[in-house]
Amino acid sequence: MSTSATGPVPEPPATMRASVLTGAGAISVQERPVPQVRPDEVLVQVAAVGVCGSDVHYYREGRIGDFVVDGPLILGHEVSGRIVAVGADVDAARIGERVAIEPQRPCRVCSQCKAGRYNLCPHMEFYATPPVDGAFCEYVTIQADFAHPVPDTVSDEAAALLEPLSVGIWASRKARIVPGSRVLIAGAGPIGVITAQAAKAFGAAEIIVTDPVAERRRLVERFGATHTLDPREDDVRDLAVDAFIDASGATPAVISGIESVRGGGVVVLVGMGADEIAVPIPIIQNRELSLTGVFRYTDTWPTAAHLVASGQVDLDSLVTGRFSLEEAEDALNADRTPGSLKAMVMPA
Amino acid sequence: MSTSATGPVPEPPATMRASVLTGAGAISVQERPVPQVRPDEVLVQVAAVGVCGSDVHYYREGRIGDFVVDGPLILGHEVSGRIVAVGADVDAARIGERVAIEPQRPCRVCSQCKAGRYNLCPHMEFYATPPVDGAFCEYVTIQADFAHPVPDTVSDEAAALLEPLSVGIWASRKARIVPGSRVLIAGAGPIGVITAQAAKAFGAAEIIVTDPVAERRRLVERFGATHTLDPREDDVRDLAVDAFIDASGATPAVISGIESVRGGGVVVLVGMGADEIAVPIPIIQNRELSLTGVFRYTDTWPTAAHLVASGQVDLDSLVTGRFSLEEAEDALNADRTPGSLKAMVMPA
Amino acid sequence: MSTSATGPVPEPPATMRASVLTGAGAISVQERPVPQVRPDEVLVQVAAVGVCGSDVHYYREGRIGDFVVDGPLILGHEVSGRIVAVGADVDAARIGERVAIEPQRPCRVCSQCKAGRYNLCPHMEFYATPPVDGAFCEYVTIQADFAHPVPDTVSDEAAALLEPLSVGIWASRKARIVPGSRVLIAGAGPIGVITAQAAKAFGAAEIIVTDPVAERRRLVERFGATHTLDPREDDVRDLAVDAFIDASGATPAVISGIESVRGGGVVVLVGMGADEIAVPIPIIQNRELSLTGVFRYTDTWPTAAHLVASGQVDLDSLVTGRFSLEEAEDALNADRTPGSLKAMVMPA
Amino acid sequence: MSTSATGPVPEPPATMRASVLTGAGAISVQERPVPQVRPDEVLVQVAAVGVCGSDVHYYREGRIGDFVVDGPLILGHEVSGRIVAVGADVDAARIGERVAIEPQRPCRVCSQCKAGRYNLCPHMEFYATPPVDGAFCEYVTIQADFAHPVPDTVSDEAAALLEPLSVGIWASRKARIVPGSRVLIAGAGPIGVITAQAAKAFGAAEIIVTDPVAERRRLVERFGATHTLDPREDDVRDLAVDAFIDASGATPAVISGIESVRGGGVVVLVGMGADEIAVPIPIIQNRELSLTGVFRYTDTWPTAAHLVASGQVDLDSLVTGRFSLEEAEDALNADRTPGSLKAMVMPA
Repeated sequence: MSTSATGPVPEPPATMRASVLTGAGAISVQERPVPQVRPDEVLVQVAAVGVCGSDVHYYREGRIGDFVVDGPLILGHEVSGRIVAVGADVDAARIGERVAIEPQRPCRVCSQCKAGRYNLCPHMEFYATPPVDGAFCEYVTIQADFAHPVPDTVSDEAAALLEPLSVGIWASRKARIVPGSRVLIAGAGPIGVITAQAAKAFGAAEIIVTDPVAERRRLVERFGATHTLDPREDDVRDLAVDAFIDASGATPAVISGIESVRGGGVVVLVGMGADEIAVPIPIIQNRELSLTGVFRYTDTWPTAAHLVASGQVDLDSLVTGRFSLEEAEDALNADRTPGSLKAMVMPA
Repeated sequence: MSTSATGPVPEPPATMRASVLTGAGAISVQERPVPQVRPDEVLVQVAAVGVCGSDVHYYREGRIGDFVVDGPLILGHEVSGRIVAVGADVDAARIGERVAIEPQRPCRVCSQCKAGRYNLCPHMEFYATPPVDGAFCEYVTIQADFAHPVPDTVSDEAAALLEPLSVGIWASRKARIVPGSRVLIAGAGPIGVITAQAAKAFGAAEIIVTDPVAERRRLVERFGATHTLDPREDDVRDLAVDAFIDASGATPAVISGIESVRGGGVVVLVGMGADEIAVPIPIIQNRELSLTGVFRYTDTWPTAAHLVASGQVDLDSLVTGRFSLEEAEDALNADRTPGSLKAMVMPA
Repeated sequence: MSTSATGPVPEPPATMRASVLTGAGAISVQERPVPQVRPDEVLVQVAAVGVCGSDVHYYREGRIGDFVVDGPLILGHEVSGRIVAVGADVDAARIGERVAIEPQRPCRVCSQCKAGRYNLCPHMEFYATPPVDGAFCEYVTIQADFAHPVPDTVSDEAAALLEPLSVGIWASRKARIVPGSRVLIAGAGPIGVITAQAAKAFGAAEIIVTDPVAERRRLVERFGATHTLDPREDDVRDLAVDAFIDASGATPAVISGIESVRGGGVVVLVGMGADEIAVPIPIIQNRELSLTGVFRYTDTWPTAAHLVASGQVDLDSLVTGRFSLEEAEDALNADRTPGSLKAMVMPA
Repeated sequence: MSTSATGPVPEPPATMRASVLTGAGAISVQERPVPQVRPDEVLVQVAAVGVCGSDVHYYREGRIGDFVVDGPLILGHEVSGRIVAVGADVDAARIGERVAIEPQRPCRVCSQCKAGRYNLCPHMEFYATPPVDGAFCEYVTIQADFAHPVPDTVSDEAAALLEPLSVGIWASRKARIVPGSRVLIAGAGPIGVITAQAAKAFGAAEIIVTDPVAERRRLVERFGATHTLDPREDDVRDLAVDAFIDASGATPAVISGIESVRGGGVVVLVGMGADEIAVPIPIIQNRELSLTGVFRYTDTWPTAAHLVASGQVDLDSLVTGRFSLEEAEDALNADRTPGSLKAMVMPA
């Protein structure tokens, strides 16, 4: 048994419980070996795991685009916990540390990695993406530098939700939000609400959020939005915002959002939706808009932890349900409950 | 009469001949007053004017998108000539200077202008764009700083064609081409051929050009292309190029071009085509591509003049026909002659 | 007499009072003609003018570097007021508008202006820089787009101080401060205090400010600083900050500041001090630091107004003295009073 | 024995000859074990090694700044050769490949590495930098991704000199050289000559090189310079270049070079010289110059290989002497021979 500032750390057991997706719509709790720690890794006892829309998609459809679940898969990639063991090359003083996990394993050798775009590494192993397991289980391993320390003032749930906050930070960076920016965000689901908070932390002066659901519009007004609009009634095309971030995946929202951006502005597509969208090319050209998307993130956890610890971003208030490992299927279906925003699985 | 290094400069007359578009498909030569020079302007005796696809479009269709010809319009915006008079605030020593005209009149006051994006000025007056006249005539005015000096080693035709070269330079900048880049260009028409040369001058190591016409592929291999492909037979999707520049306006070329770009790469849409294109959004997202367009250019003439004067770009060889003002309609229809690439109107 | 939302606007008189620097150390109030409004300008009745260190320098020394006062000069370039007349090309509806003045007159035609770097325009006419008069007087003119509207929630004094806030914003941009940044600022005078606030608004997580005066350290801790240090006792060289901003002009502070920056970080020199500083070149090289300075600003007023209106930056609390035009000399000498931070001249 | 396209590859022996620096000014040839190949490495039989000024400095002075030679050290970091063995994780098909070595071993885990700045990795192991051995020997190991393939049209000597060319490319990138740029380079030694060629390949329109030695000025005029100046006679301060690159390390050249740059331009310090230089700070500030240095490079080898293979850069002509391993000391002293530019050690 090791000890740490936060108390004694028990030796990890040989096996653990894991909630496993065994086929589309089929989840079962299984006993699995606790993963072996490689020399550059740490073993983390999982405290909290957020349920992401992609988890739900794999659960219900068995695939996301080209990523197909063709064997048992552990879902969950929004993860916090506590280091309980370290590999041979890692400082043992880290045992006991509370951490938020950046769920990426890039190769670090390819040209994308060496250029600083490790999120685009073609050899990436990402949690809960077939065939790589995620964190709906008691223990996970991660390379030591992707286990980011979190201060004690950040809860386990908030620490897990640094992952979706990273998406919001990355989108805000891609959208080049700076103090004074005017930004339009489509969609007030979890990512929209978190991105609105991130945009505010980046200094945006106006944050206009559209969502057809009145309850969601009211919610996001408490979390960063300076105005909200109902896309079925309000026209955004004359806003001339500096940046548009789509967090809806809805084709009409993407198209009207593009039309809302001033010359030289930016469009960032975060939401997953149709495989093709009929984009108004002359608007892209005549305004020289820059349209891009986000795929995960690089170097966001320290910033995310700061934004939460300093109170600029509130993640705890987004949690609308907590579930045990045995209730993981309920957590995956929580989005069917009106008012649900973010379900958490708490394996401990 | 003034004098200059290149000989005496005659006083401009009171009227001039102009080739005027009076309706879709209708061109006539008219006598017009020589334009008055404002204090910050120069008067240029036109030497050569290139025919651009947009001129042809206005001539045949009477409109381009929202820009509608609803009165008499002088076409032509690829212009060279000689300064024959200057406004009160301009150095009279410039009289006699050979110049290439950057055919823009931005407001210089709006936030786009002050941010260095004067091409996106909402108050822009651009040659040959309704209701602003162009240069199929004997004399034009332009603000002095947009009359760029050209060395004597650059011909009148090449000086005029610094305008389309500016498009190629601007596209190459937007495409972030640097020494060693791999770039795909769709379309081997005038803009494709010029952009291939620009990309080479920017240091691209591989310049792959697609065009369905064999003769155009052969041509572009003499002007910058390192490889050519027939888009009907060859698949570009595995190229993993750093940048794709569309100079075709063809929807299938745009879509396959997007699919040809590596993670973190750039797509630049230059060609005008469909009002909407069904873009594969997950590819934009998963590769974090940056898709943009070009709308004219800023600060390209000095670079363009250097590339031609140094022999890195050959514009003279692209000229396939020369026409008088009276033959302007033939010049506008020259694209119907096989092998025609660039027709020039020579008003003098 | 015109009227506006904020009440009737009196016609401007023919003459006005002005506080004029007539030689080093010599200030006198004179009657001067109210300046004529050119077509693109507005006439502003001055409400408040901040005293800047450069004003004091001209007053005491008669020069700053190559800028020499060799004739009567009106000082003051931190200016707010109310539009009382407009030129022929300006919307008359602006009469009555409360504005903060960006005290620049760039040429808008040179390559610097057209590239968006109008602050570097070689033809710049800048308020209170010989031979261009400033604003220690009742009325001034400025081009309409440089008279920035301010909301009623921003006081006259704060509106004037958007000018030094612009310096802090510009320095923060140059220092590439983003959410989570760690920044060292040397000097807790007016610019240091304002820059600390700007850096906080840009999202800096750590803002370490050094000043040898304990009272100033206590002050800046109320205005953005997360830590303060006494440079005579504390060593900054191991901080490894992302950016160092010098607001002291002190040679030792500049040198130790450079040594405090991590590899790939930024050094921004704002304070004016020695003409030469012995810079540790191998540190610049081995860490690939980027060292630069600020010279005024571009496009900062809208952001500055937002930061004050939203309460993120507090300028009113920095004002430690208000003086009439007749007391301008006292205002210029206010820095000799302990605890003085920012003196304002209120001409009305 | 393996075979490859270029002939059979002999098994590496157990020991090899190495030219070892055993103290300041003392070199001896020793028998050393051939280094063991780690799983991610290749073993390279050394073909050619360039002598760099830093090698000479270590040889003569025993130190460079804080880097002190306090044990036997093998010099040489400009290296080409042929892969003769590979580690367990490397494709065996690479055996026989001709390669140029990027002599860096970054940690790939720290924040600098993950941000794409692996040259600034604080855990870097760099060839021929105490206590890491270099390549004046028969065999070296390097991680596989830093053994860059070279085409057969590039000689062994040129392949080795892709290292100093990488410095010139990196300096050109830092100097933001683009087609049409005007650049001043101080110093026409090996780095100056190579940087002039790199700048030309990046499209610089004017490349002005200063050197007090007439012979060197004549040389560099054959290698990229468009003009040359004698710094003892010619004043560079009015050039208003876009960028200044110092490849001299001479304090007066650095100072006058800074003064030669236009507003908003760049200063890149490559040459090693004084530990401190008295920099004219007001010029940095008033022109908002950006001053930086280069420390090695990232991602330059593919570009360097392209520039040589395409004939844009000529490295072979720079070689003025070839020496065996036993003559390594002569190679290190070759700079004392008039007209010497680049000495090569050929261990095979």
